[in-house]
Amino acid sequence: MSPKIMQYFKRDQFARYVGIDLLEVSEGKAVARMKIEKHHLNGVGIVHGAAIFSLADLAFAVASNSHGTVAVAINVNISFLKAVSRGTLIASAEEVSRNPKLGNYRIQVRNEEDELIAVFDGLVYRKKEPLPLDAADTAGDGQ
Amino acid sequence: MSPKIMQYFKRDQFARYVGIDLLEVSEGKAVARMKIEKHHLNGVGIVHGAAIFSLADLAFAVASNSHGTVAVAINVNISFLKAVSRGTLIASAEEVSRNPKLGNYRIQVRNEEDELIAVFDGLVYRKKEPLPLDAADTAGDGQ
Amino acid sequence: MSPKIMQYFKRDQFARYVGIDLLEVSEGKAVARMKIEKHHLNGVGIVHGAAIFSLADLAFAVASNSHGTVAVAINVNISFLKAVSRGTLIASAEEVSRNPKLGNYRIQVRNEEDELIAVFDGLVYRKKEPLPLDAADTAGDGQ
Amino acid sequence: MSPKIMQYFKRDQFARYVGIDLLEVSEGKAVARMKIEKHHLNGVGIVHGAAIFSLADLAFAVASNSHGTVAVAINVNISFLKAVSRGTLIASAEEVSRNPKLGNYRIQVRNEEDELIAVFDGLVYRKKEPLPLDAADTAGDGQ
Repeated sequence: MSPKIMQYFKRDQFARYVGIDLLEVSEGKAVARMKIEKHHLNGVGIVHGAAIFSLADLAFAVASNSHGTVAVAINVNISFLKAVSRGTLIASAEEVSRNPKLGNYRIQVRNEEDELIAVFDGLVYRKKEPLPLDAADTAGDGQ
Repeated sequence: MSPKIMQYFKRDQFARYVGIDLLEVSEGKAVARMKIEKHHLNGVGIVHGAAIFSLADLAFAVASNSHGTVAVAINVNISFLKAVSRGTLIASAEEVSRNPKLGNYRIQVRNEEDELIAVFDGLVYRKKEPLPLDAADTAGDGQ
Repeated sequence: MSPKIMQYFKRDQFARYVGIDLLEVSEGKAVARMKIEKHHLNGVGIVHGAAIFSLADLAFAVASNSHGTVAVAINVNISFLKAVSRGTLIASAEEVSRNPKLGNYRIQVRNEEDELIAVFDGLVYRKKEPLPLDAADTAGDGQ
Repeated sequence: MSPKIMQYFKRDQFARYVGIDLLEVSEGKAVARMKIEKHHLNGVGIVHGAAIFSLADLAFAVASNSHGTVAVAINVNISFLKAVSRGTLIASAEEVSRNPKLGNYRIQVRNEEDELIAVFDGLVYRKKEPLPLDAADTAGDGQ
């Protein structure tokens, strides 16, 4: 399923617009990357908290949808631990807990020196419907 | 101070890139707007949680810096209450609490029907240093 | 339904043990009170964060169960705004949002001077099963 | 310092009242235990979320004060993952991040089967003042 899920999330227009790449997917896990560009910065030259959130959020979305059914984000708690202004950031998502209705994920964002930049805890509501992977393929063709 | 702060936050490259406008600033308050565009959507045509976060985050940053000293975001908790796919979103930030070291802000994101789309609670660490408003003006000239 | 719900929550042994009183219930709302006693304090004579949480949590539980079906807490975010060491604390819960599956509540904890001591945001998963109000009456008899 | 810190936290009247034992302390870490008693239950015989919070909160307080200076809790985010009604719960706190002003801690609460019951993320503001350990000894004598 992983190649299909990677394909599916390539349709995420916001992640693509911000400049986030999905590197890995497996059951309950995902890794995403953001090479820091000028448009990620705030007014004082630091990577914007919302850019860091966006990176972690993609890893969260992919990990929580990795079981093949639709998972909808309902709550996120993020702590910003260290300012960063250049280089590449990596977000790694792990599943903390999952039952048929809810899933809980921990995402760590690190810089190239492996320093922890932010921790992101996300909660999803899990629907029964399958992820529309084939629709994604078709739709993807049209873009 | 408000016009200077509005000017200062126009330097926020990420907010500008995402397409977020700052509408109002006063002491402890701010209002921001995002007209939903195609690049705000996720793979299923819904506004991305990270786009909603980005909108709320600008209102949060402006409100928490509105007293003229630097405030740094340390934690955010966001709940996504309702999916939205078109129209304009408005984020309104209010100061819940503030002491010399910490500030707590509540941001509500609503659609044009005034439905609540997300609630965002943000915590800042307040530094003693003044916001570099004049530097902002100068730097702004160069862009 | 309110008198039955107040009766039902009198069975909450932890709230009773800690010394929390339920004052009011209506649809989506609840008010609870805790008179500060010595056993609420931490090692330096300040009311323990967990005691404040316990107070807010009762108001949260009652408000989220006030519609007559079972609501289960899944996430809470609490910010501690001001230390307090004596007097009476009041927690007021309001419903921020509710759909058939999820509910979001904001609880404010204030002291007798009406100062904000803590803000508590709680999320519930809503089951379809009715609150066992009559069972509560019966069981309550046996205690 | 650990024995002194364990002694210091024995003065935590709320933790003692609730029935929480501190098992281990080291730099940035702590382990606490709560044997489930009747007074920990809610109206339907499940351990109360606030009792679980109280357990995790002691481990958080001890870990964040373990460096010998006062740390004040400013925010906690807790997710309740699994209901539990009997046995013993263990909370283990680990330091995620620390700078001179702020510290971030992750506390896991598990049951005797090592199942994850709750995850608790806490943020402290770190003061410069030393923990009043000797005062604690003296004060402790008087109790």
